[in-house]
Amino acid sequence: MTEQTPRAERLAAQARAAREAQPSLARLDAAARNVLLLDVARRLVEQRAPLAEANVRDLDAGAAAGLGPALLDRLRLDGPRLDGLAGDMCTVAALADPLAEEFDRRALPNGLSIARRRVPIGVVGVIYEARPNVTVDIAAAALKSGNAVVLRGGREARQTNLALVALLHEALRAAGLPEAIVSFIDAPEREAVSELLQLADCIDVMVPRGGQGLIDLCRRESRIPLIAGGVGVVHIYVDASADLERALAVIENAKVQRPAVCNALDTLLVQSSAAEPLLPALAQRLSGFGVVFHAEGEAASLLAAGGGRVEALAAGDFDREWLGLAMGVQLVEDVEAAIGHIARHGSGHSEAILSEDAEAVARFLNAVDASAVYHNASTRFTDGGQFGMGVEVAVATGRLPPRGPVGPAELTSWKWVGRGDYLPRA
Amino acid sequence: MTEQTPRAERLAAQARAAREAQPSLARLDAAARNVLLLDVARRLVEQRAPLAEANVRDLDAGAAAGLGPALLDRLRLDGPRLDGLAGDMCTVAALADPLAEEFDRRALPNGLSIARRRVPIGVVGVIYEARPNVTVDIAAAALKSGNAVVLRGGREARQTNLALVALLHEALRAAGLPEAIVSFIDAPEREAVSELLQLADCIDVMVPRGGQGLIDLCRRESRIPLIAGGVGVVHIYVDASADLERALAVIENAKVQRPAVCNALDTLLVQSSAAEPLLPALAQRLSGFGVVFHAEGEAASLLAAGGGRVEALAAGDFDREWLGLAMGVQLVEDVEAAIGHIARHGSGHSEAILSEDAEAVARFLNAVDASAVYHNASTRFTDGGQFGMGVEVAVATGRLPPRGPVGPAELTSWKWVGRGDYLPRA
Repeated sequence: MTEQTPRAERLAAQARAAREAQPSLARLDAAARNVLLLDVARRLVEQRAPLAEANVRDLDAGAAAGLGPALLDRLRLDGPRLDGLAGDMCTVAALADPLAEEFDRRALPNGLSIARRRVPIGVVGVIYEARPNVTVDIAAAALKSGNAVVLRGGREARQTNLALVALLHEALRAAGLPEAIVSFIDAPEREAVSELLQLADCIDVMVPRGGQGLIDLCRRESRIPLIAGGVGVVHIYVDASADLERALAVIENAKVQRPAVCNALDTLLVQSSAAEPLLPALAQRLSGFGVVFHAEGEAASLLAAGGGRVEALAAGDFDREWLGLAMGVQLVEDVEAAIGHIARHGSGHSEAILSEDAEAVARFLNAVDASAVYHNASTRFTDGGQFGMGVEVAVATGRLPPRGPVGPAELTSWKWVGRGDYLPRA
Repeated sequence: MTEQTPRAERLAAQARAAREAQPSLARLDAAARNVLLLDVARRLVEQRAPLAEANVRDLDAGAAAGLGPALLDRLRLDGPRLDGLAGDMCTVAALADPLAEEFDRRALPNGLSIARRRVPIGVVGVIYEARPNVTVDIAAAALKSGNAVVLRGGREARQTNLALVALLHEALRAAGLPEAIVSFIDAPEREAVSELLQLADCIDVMVPRGGQGLIDLCRRESRIPLIAGGVGVVHIYVDASADLERALAVIENAKVQRPAVCNALDTLLVQSSAAEPLLPALAQRLSGFGVVFHAEGEAASLLAAGGGRVEALAAGDFDREWLGLAMGVQLVEDVEAAIGHIARHGSGHSEAILSEDAEAVARFLNAVDASAVYHNASTRFTDGGQFGMGVEVAVATGRLPPRGPVGPAELTSWKWVGRGDYLPRA
């Protein structure tokens, strides 16, 4: 056992307080939890001005510290964004109650009647970075699902986060609940993350939201089970049977709508027999957006023929998450070859087939292993908001549940409830 | 990175082979997977004699090494037990297919239709000890659910395990499947466990079946998510409203039917107002079985009045898993006090209330946090076989899913399937 620092003791005390506070939230009925969410929405609208001021202090400090424009934009929480957050609270309040439902009910031959009852996981830890709206989104998911949260936000958003947490605490107090249901860790030091990851007694699951470095750190050090996302190396396979004109619209959407996010397209796989009409048209269509293609051989020639900017394939290009206006393109013989390519290079995030061939579609959807697989739809849909979850805690790309977008319902577990008539086991 | 030993390289190669073999099992339809299970059943019956002979070699070696009678009994796999195992295979084959089902289907406002599809987790690792039937039970759960397994059995059962694995490999080969779907780690050294726990690339979840030492080791060292059970500190709370005569039968069953297992009763909580008639009768009823009561004050007096053997409470007695014919007894004011006691001392395994008071029952079933909670039934029901799962891989006592008995269906996850009509995200 390593010696406890005073900070480690403080973190442990906060996590323990969250553990002790959680049952008082879980005991509320769905209506009371929804009223709490709507009260948070009201306070976000009412306190627009002071919240935006706190955010300006973070933005000023960030600009002075030399943060780039992309990071400053992630940090920004202005009036319209606060209104958007308030709207998210209302959306979450309107969702079906994820708790208390009993399912898989069975009367067993031994005389016992059993069912699984949905319960909160307990205490959910989240480690995140610049965007302060995450603080409210995750608190909302937790309040909806009866979980307490231990939040460790980024240093850059400190003033905004403290203001948002003060607002959440006001709402909890007004509902007669302990503030520790939303426990905020005000400790920007890197070591605080390592210390949090040891608190398996008080935190049931840890969600790292951030770059690969943070996720790797958690994998190495965490005693707490993780819900982790990570790299999205995302593929679309275009079958020769597809409506190629409409396919182009989906590919464009997946690549250029928001190229810096994890569900954006990275590698396009094209059935060889469709390459001739598709690739020159694709090059023409995407060149205006500034997309650079990484390809070789016939694919490179056809893209160049359409006026595309083509670069030679480098080692590892098919394992890259481009996070920008670049993409790999590869010809494949058929759907089996596409499945094989994805098995070798995919990261289990989002994969799509564009096809009119029902057999090829079925093979693809069955065989491709990812958190979300699509037929004739953009990979950009892998998102809690798009999936109707209201808010998104993470996109989980592991194989264990929860898998894919994590909303309030994904923060639940079950307990078995058995009922008998003074029933002994035979 | 630590240097790889030749053994670590061999383990990694076996786990990688399991990873690569798994899709060929997952591709089979339910009928083919069930035929495979029935073929294993047939071979178990046919090969009774050589299997029992291999087991005798383990029993002889165990006796020579000084194993006690309890351990030798766990190790024994004779004809009747082999027939029982074959019967388990048939039971598992008859269960509903845990795969391929789509659920939570929704048509979203954005035009996308989504559903969750049940899929195997992938590769399941299991570390276990003396009982060789576990080898076949876990293989059956895996074959049913489309998972590959990496099995590391105990040193004492080595000959039996090797014979059982050879039989499983015969059945896989006969079905045209790779043997690596059931990968057996023939490495009795303790370090092999540590090395297995690093193979997060190839093993999706690890199930430690064994004592607290093994579970603690896994918690410290594993890079792989765990499904872990552990100590069962099990309570029954008797409300004054209960039918006390029938309650006695349930308490007897929970305590004496099989006292050495994790779902056996450890601490009886009795509402004070019912103590007078209940405890003397309990003492009378259980004394014949040799049960020793650990209690103090009025509880101790009433138990002694019924002729019970009573010992003074020692520190930590309410946190003990007795694993034998001993139990704690404590008077509590009411159901709330019982819930509080269980929150302080329970281990999240199995908890029961015996009561005719619907409000007390609802409060108990809601507030008590455990993998299984019971009303008017014995805690001994927490068991995959009793729950109709055919076989049991583990009883998970963590808060994350899967929780409680882990059967074939609990070795599944989901992937999202999204369908559109060449649908871009707005």
